[in-house]
Amino acid sequence: MLDFTYFAPTKIHFGRGQISHLSELRQSGDRVLLCYGGGSIKRNGIYDEALRVLGEAGIQVFELDGVEPNPRIQTVRRGVELCRSNGIDMVLAIGGGSSIDCAKVVAAGARYDGDPWDLVIHPQLIEAALPIYTVLTLSATGSEMDAFAVISDLEKNEKWGTAGSALLPTMSVLDPSYTFSVPARQTAAGTADMMSHTFENYFHFEPGSFLQERLAEGILKTCIHYGPIALAKPDDYEARANLMWASSHAINGLVSEGCSPAWCVHPMEHELSAFYDITHGEGLAILTPAWMEHVLDERTAPVFARYGRNVWGVGETDDMAIAHEAIRLTREFFFRTMGMPATLREVGITSDEHFAVMAKKAAAGSKGSFVELSEEDVEQIYSAAL
Amino acid sequence: MLDFTYFAPTKIHFGRGQISHLSELRQSGDRVLLCYGGGSIKRNGIYDEALRVLGEAGIQVFELDGVEPNPRIQTVRRGVELCRSNGIDMVLAIGGGSSIDCAKVVAAGARYDGDPWDLVIHPQLIEAALPIYTVLTLSATGSEMDAFAVISDLEKNEKWGTAGSALLPTMSVLDPSYTFSVPARQTAAGTADMMSHTFENYFHFEPGSFLQERLAEGILKTCIHYGPIALAKPDDYEARANLMWASSHAINGLVSEGCSPAWCVHPMEHELSAFYDITHGEGLAILTPAWMEHVLDERTAPVFARYGRNVWGVGETDDMAIAHEAIRLTREFFFRTMGMPATLREVGITSDEHFAVMAKKAAAGSKGSFVELSEEDVEQIYSAAL
Repeated sequence: MLDFTYFAPTKIHFGRGQISHLSELRQSGDRVLLCYGGGSIKRNGIYDEALRVLGEAGIQVFELDGVEPNPRIQTVRRGVELCRSNGIDMVLAIGGGSSIDCAKVVAAGARYDGDPWDLVIHPQLIEAALPIYTVLTLSATGSEMDAFAVISDLEKNEKWGTAGSALLPTMSVLDPSYTFSVPARQTAAGTADMMSHTFENYFHFEPGSFLQERLAEGILKTCIHYGPIALAKPDDYEARANLMWASSHAINGLVSEGCSPAWCVHPMEHELSAFYDITHGEGLAILTPAWMEHVLDERTAPVFARYGRNVWGVGETDDMAIAHEAIRLTREFFFRTMGMPATLREVGITSDEHFAVMAKKAAAGSKGSFVELSEEDVEQIYSAAL
Repeated sequence: MLDFTYFAPTKIHFGRGQISHLSELRQSGDRVLLCYGGGSIKRNGIYDEALRVLGEAGIQVFELDGVEPNPRIQTVRRGVELCRSNGIDMVLAIGGGSSIDCAKVVAAGARYDGDPWDLVIHPQLIEAALPIYTVLTLSATGSEMDAFAVISDLEKNEKWGTAGSALLPTMSVLDPSYTFSVPARQTAAGTADMMSHTFENYFHFEPGSFLQERLAEGILKTCIHYGPIALAKPDDYEARANLMWASSHAINGLVSEGCSPAWCVHPMEHELSAFYDITHGEGLAILTPAWMEHVLDERTAPVFARYGRNVWGVGETDDMAIAHEAIRLTREFFFRTMGMPATLREVGITSDEHFAVMAKKAAAGSKGSFVELSEEDVEQIYSAAL
């Protein structure tokens, strides 16, 4: 097991009606910047309920609305400006990972003397942030309980993840009933996202992180069990609750600390989103089986066989056979059971014109991961997924 | 899934040499009360290393030594007095659960205007505490990352657990190599303790906590896999590391929040320790299979069968048959594989003279648990374990 520091201090209020805990924001001040995306939180009543609780707590609300699905640095800059001009004490994101990621970098930008894009490119510059609070409405990125944020500058086809312990939310409200109205396509993409976070940590050659592997298998089994249930019955509380809590644990350090130091599928997907603004979880689902097949060899077969045996219960004895079957089952789960787009063409990427430049950046991002990918590897994976 | 609040803010520095992080205590002040038990930390060099790091950080050290294996309220009172008379800023426990539990109640007692026994009997009185730091030397109780403490008044045959978020350690150092010198008997008892914490949460009728069940199975598999390895090769880093990290997760809320509200085997064991001062983990190991057999019936069989299937891989189809086999395997693991005492007689409890009075308190403690136990139930379990 590798040495590590584990730090997951976010207080989670989990269950129906927990939004009443927004009164706790009062401990951080009385002026909040509320960050959210489109109008869905207005349609489903969460916005009104939040304003009511905040109002009763004597908190004045300023708003950053219109946060994009792949949040833009331009929106972050607008949020930082609102913080500065209004003496904001804390930020509150209501939404999925995009609103939360945007709010995080706004919170750090408000305590940074310079352009917030610096904080995206150079995480080490994140030294402080306003207190961050979240109300989660989509189970996917785990941003509600982690130190990460992903911000894009689509004018430059750039999408980068940043991180810092100052970005850890102080408190998050996880009410599974808030995800009842999430459309099937986003439910599937969110499930693929949390599975991918788990995969990125679970596939590794690091010996001795037995505990983390077993915990990761528990998260994967939860996604595989409840993903289809949430699709079939969107208001199934048990399914939504398990998926929501799984999304937080997939990336809060539980299954990563002590294991693998670097990811490789996410860097490939970030390039897809940076160039084509596709849904992150769909990009991950499309790339994952293609990546598995590309890196499967005698050396990696035992790792994929462990996955097949322990997660899917594949009963074969030969590692390579189990690995092939596990990849087949993964593909079938995403593209048949969860009904996700199976190729890049299906999400509107119809040519390989940008693959070379995208591969250059993605290959750099995979350094130190389970299987390091060359630019040629990444291009081949993109092409196989086309 | 039940509603819950999850809060595990303790920063964990995990790995060899992480004791250097004791320099972080400086953020809480410059006067520390160091709590520890016997002389083992002096023999193995941890004491000297801690003093060196603290000295370099400019921290003045006061000492509360001689903390007992079942820490006494009398020792807590001595610690509180030391805090008051020396203007102590924070406490540091170096040891296992006993030293840590003692330090926690000392820290709360120093911020409480009254006798610290009040805080043991009435947890709701714990409103504040000095910052708590720990260096773990025994994998067992999970006190290094939880909000609990167990304190005894053996003059009155009383042993009670208390809890409060103020008791959550600020930072804990987990260096698995510090447990290389733990004797086989304590290694086995510690493994039984963390398995029991997991069992108390894992056996329940609460539907819909699928994720927590799968995570609990991961912890149990880790204990079953590495317990025997740590016995056979005490300096096996991988085994010690997995057991250490499992001990923290068994009780930090990961496998309990959202599931079961009350425990039942721990209350029975606390009475054994309160009357006979036996090793907690040995008491748990002796009681657990006797308890399982006592509560096994048509209603509980599916729960124990889930355990047999998912943790032990029992391949039968009939729930009752699987449950019986799971209990047999549990018994065999503790008493054969781990070489633990199998009966109360073997730990020096040779008569049933106190069983009635012990059963009265233990039965009260089991209220709301998986299977509520009457006084007669508890007496029968004690007798079966005799």
